[in-house]
Amino acid sequence: MGKVHIEENVTTEKKTEYSLVRVKGTWTRKLGKKVNKDKFDCVSAAKIYESVSEKGTSWTVVTPIVFTYKVTESLGLLDPSNDTLLLGHITDSQQMEDIKKTNKPLKRFVVVDQEVYKIYGPKLTEYLEARNVQYKILALPTTEENKSMEMAMEILEEVNNFSLDRRTEPIIAIGGGVCLDIVGLAASLYRRRTPYIRVPTTLLSYIDASVGAKTGVNFANCKNKLGAYIPPTAVFLDLSFIQTVPRRHISNGLAEMLKMALVKHRELFELLEKHGRSLLDTRFQGDNSVYRCNHLDAPSQATRIAITTMLEELAPNLWEDDLNRLVDFGHLISPALEMKVLPSLLHGEAVNIDMAYMVYVSQESGLLSEEEKQRIISCMVSLELPVWHQECTMELIQKSLQDRLKHSGGLVRMPLPVGLGQADIFNNTSYEILLKAYEKWCDELSMSSQSNCDP
Amino acid sequence: MGKVHIEENVTTEKKTEYSLVRVKGTWTRKLGKKVNKDKFDCVSAAKIYESVSEKGTSWTVVTPIVFTYKVTESLGLLDPSNDTLLLGHITDSQQMEDIKKTNKPLKRFVVVDQEVYKIYGPKLTEYLEARNVQYKILALPTTEENKSMEMAMEILEEVNNFSLDRRTEPIIAIGGGVCLDIVGLAASLYRRRTPYIRVPTTLLSYIDASVGAKTGVNFANCKNKLGAYIPPTAVFLDLSFIQTVPRRHISNGLAEMLKMALVKHRELFELLEKHGRSLLDTRFQGDNSVYRCNHLDAPSQATRIAITTMLEELAPNLWEDDLNRLVDFGHLISPALEMKVLPSLLHGEAVNIDMAYMVYVSQESGLLSEEEKQRIISCMVSLELPVWHQECTMELIQKSLQDRLKHSGGLVRMPLPVGLGQADIFNNTSYEILLKAYEKWCDELSMSSQSNCDP
Ligand SMILES: NC(=O)c1ccc[n+]([C@@H]2O[C@H](COP(=O)([O-])OP(=O)(O)OC[C@H]3O[C@@H](n4cnc5c(N)ncnc54)[C@H](O)[C@@H]3O)[C@@H](O)[C@H]2O)c1
Ligand SMILES: NC(=O)c1ccc[n+]([C@@H]2O[C@H](COP(=O)([O-])OP(=O)(O)OC[C@H]3O[C@@H](n4cnc5c(N)ncnc54)[C@H](O)[C@@H]3O)[C@@H](O)[C@H]2O)c1
Ligand SMILES: [Zn+2]
Ligand SMILES: [Zn+2]
Repeated sequence: MGKVHIEENVTTEKKTEYSLVRVKGTWTRKLGKKVNKDKFDCVSAAKIYESVSEKGTSWTVVTPIVFTYKVTESLGLLDPSNDTLLLGHITDSQQMEDIKKTNKPLKRFVVVDQEVYKIYGPKLTEYLEARNVQYKILALPTTEENKSMEMAMEILEEVNNFSLDRRTEPIIAIGGGVCLDIVGLAASLYRRRTPYIRVPTTLLSYIDASVGAKTGVNFANCKNKLGAYIPPTAVFLDLSFIQTVPRRHISNGLAEMLKMALVKHRELFELLEKHGRSLLDTRFQGDNSVYRCNHLDAPSQATRIAITTMLEELAPNLWEDDLNRLVDFGHLISPALEMKVLPSLLHGEAVNIDMAYMVYVSQESGLLSEEEKQRIISCMVSLELPVWHQECTMELIQKSLQDRLKHSGGLVRMPLPVGLGQADIFNNTSYEILLKAYEKWCDELSMSSQSNCDP
Repeated sequence: MGKVHIEENVTTEKKTEYSLVRVKGTWTRKLGKKVNKDKFDCVSAAKIYESVSEKGTSWTVVTPIVFTYKVTESLGLLDPSNDTLLLGHITDSQQMEDIKKTNKPLKRFVVVDQEVYKIYGPKLTEYLEARNVQYKILALPTTEENKSMEMAMEILEEVNNFSLDRRTEPIIAIGGGVCLDIVGLAASLYRRRTPYIRVPTTLLSYIDASVGAKTGVNFANCKNKLGAYIPPTAVFLDLSFIQTVPRRHISNGLAEMLKMALVKHRELFELLEKHGRSLLDTRFQGDNSVYRCNHLDAPSQATRIAITTMLEELAPNLWEDDLNRLVDFGHLISPALEMKVLPSLLHGEAVNIDMAYMVYVSQESGLLSEEEKQRIISCMVSLELPVWHQECTMELIQKSLQDRLKHSGGLVRMPLPVGLGQADIFNNTSYEILLKAYEKWCDELSMSSQSNCDP
């Protein structure tokens, strides 16, 4: 290897930077960083760097792809007078005019979670009929066990038979995170990218699975091992779907909401402390008739904060290239725990157990006061979330952190709360602290959690 | 619909633009377009636009993802003294230093076309052994018939068993366009994106399939119906692989090279006119010992021009969002023709038949002189490419153009040569011209092509 290295050093390289400009429909390289924009039809954001040496030529292409997507609250999504579901993704006003002028029926392919279809199927059908849509509804058992490439392929067969126009006819997914993830992947593969729309119907998918770019299916016994980072063209949020979600699944979603509160937003934490239980009792159904922009009711306010804080963290890091992610809080140990006890813990429940332990680590590290710790744990309990689990052993914790080390470029990058509503990334937490925190956590919570752990 | 429309117009919307800045590990929205960069750890290129109305809040996320990839010529890729195959993708000099310092063996997963493996397998194994790599070679029958999601899944099973580190251990694909396309898709799906390296071994993949972002597999009897736009982390080009490619497949690759010449590069056309036949005879094997930067031999020069012109068109339009693509020349009618007569025509052969007809359309439209037309057709014949096919009927031509109209936003966007080495996009070619060109094309070429059509 030494020899090769030396050879490289004596190689004379000539490096050139090119901009790309369009002249009469042809793209042409132009020397240099700065190009007179007035002289050309179009100057691309892409660059080509050419490097010529005795060993040959090398080109480096650097090109940004801009992703744009819309997350829109819209009550009464299935009310026939509401056209959001069909047209809410359109941003071009000319296109909107054209569609509204023409009498041609719209065409939509809709994939719905089977359980959601049982409840909302008639309304959905009525809606599509009332709006004169040429449609196909595919109701599927999109459960965690079925979250596989096989189901994505099943969807693709049907999409292909329906023969949609991939530029103007987005695929619509309606359901929880599982349904949205599978459909998102299928759409991303079809003709190398077909726009899709997400309509989340669980709390967890409303505030989490629907707002980012990630899609995926399970593979080889691993969660979301195959997938893509292709955001939907639009997400339509209608809280009224949540009223039929089972109570345990509301708690499940609250865990991810609490995560955002703990790492980024003290007011959201205080809101959950105060109103969390009532949000759970009322299933996020506020009094919508008195809805006002600045005097939001608790469900609107809580979900809105959860979404904006999430978008803040996602937008600059849509493809997760930056490994320092606060939103990973609660997601260091929970994946292994979730798989180990499958299917006894839901995702948010496993996340919460992970967070509860980490709160002890924070306190042990002097980052959280005893009182702050207590407040967090009490809040979790009031949200009916498990705060301890016997399968979350010290061995599991250590193994998870070691795995993380391996896949995160040699650093553990552990998000820890530093006060309420604030967190930071830590890389050097000692084994002593991890162990002490673990012992205290077991001491204090192994009893109290008995009633919450396996609801 | 009228009612909904009116409602929209009276809605009062408040729109806000946010930049995103990082403060102590947290991303925060900051009002406005311009942000003082000195005050923050990091200012993101992403933006969030918030729009608040009585109907609810809507957020639009706009975020650029920058793709960077390297296309590198490297002779003797399998020569143990050449470390390009293992390290040529690394751009960070610190990382390179670290790797060279450590004694830990590198780990690589390699997928190879089975036919290529028969010829180059021993050399490849020797190379990996000599460089002390911990490797797995997966030789697969990556034929057009096997180009399916099933084969991608087969690769993924093996990748998963190999348990590579997806940040530092790229998957290597060695083969023709089929192999590169399948492996590229598999890698793009694995953990939502695993870097991969392309080593093209056919002329077609050397100048075309390997230099862009497209991956794909066939589905439901359609070419490349499923896929992704994820570029490789690097492409390594070694012309010496071409010496074992069957003559017909060299012609096949020459068709795509001729395409670039006709739409963008007159000198490349003249080079093919003059040296095309000898390139075919010598299978692009120049005298590499006298290789010099500025006195390139014909194989190096022809491939290099083909690649740079291709990169010029690809880099600004990596995800094909712009539908006006000169590189679509020869690809309007050929997909239908290729599928219709499968497997009798290779891709480049079908493309050439399409181009030959289009040259007649150009001439009939007054865009090409009779002499220019003759020169192009003669050049095609000298490259042993078919210039006419009886299954390329007027019906097929019309149906293809109508299909194109449907999937290209209502315009046919037909690239046509306007002189030698130049082309433009046309939308209003009349049926009369298409028909006249067709009749002349059949008159002049149906006989001459007999000998070239089905080699
Ligand atoms: N893409 C992402 O960024 C992301 C983020 C977080 C989670 N996820 C994924 O989301 C999945 C979990 O999502 P989930 O919690 O929504 O699970 P889920 O999709 O399984 O839904 C939970 C249950 O609620 C039912 N249901 C859904 N909507 C209902 C309604 N309105 N009324 C009554 N019942 C309803 C479903 O049939 C299901 O039984 C996981 O697979 C996880 O990997 C993805
Ligand atoms: N991704 C893209 O942008 C892009 C562009 C153009 C074409 N393609 C795809 O590429 C495919 C066609 O590629 P191709 O023409 O390379 O076909 P191919 O991969 O089928 O290879 C052609 C034949 O040559 C053999 N072969 C390969 N290398 C050899 C070598 N060095 N010596 C001897 N034999 C060798 C192969 O086994 C095969 O039989 C199509 O599926 C097409 O869709 C993709
Ligand atoms: Zn989660
Ligand atoms: Zn082609």
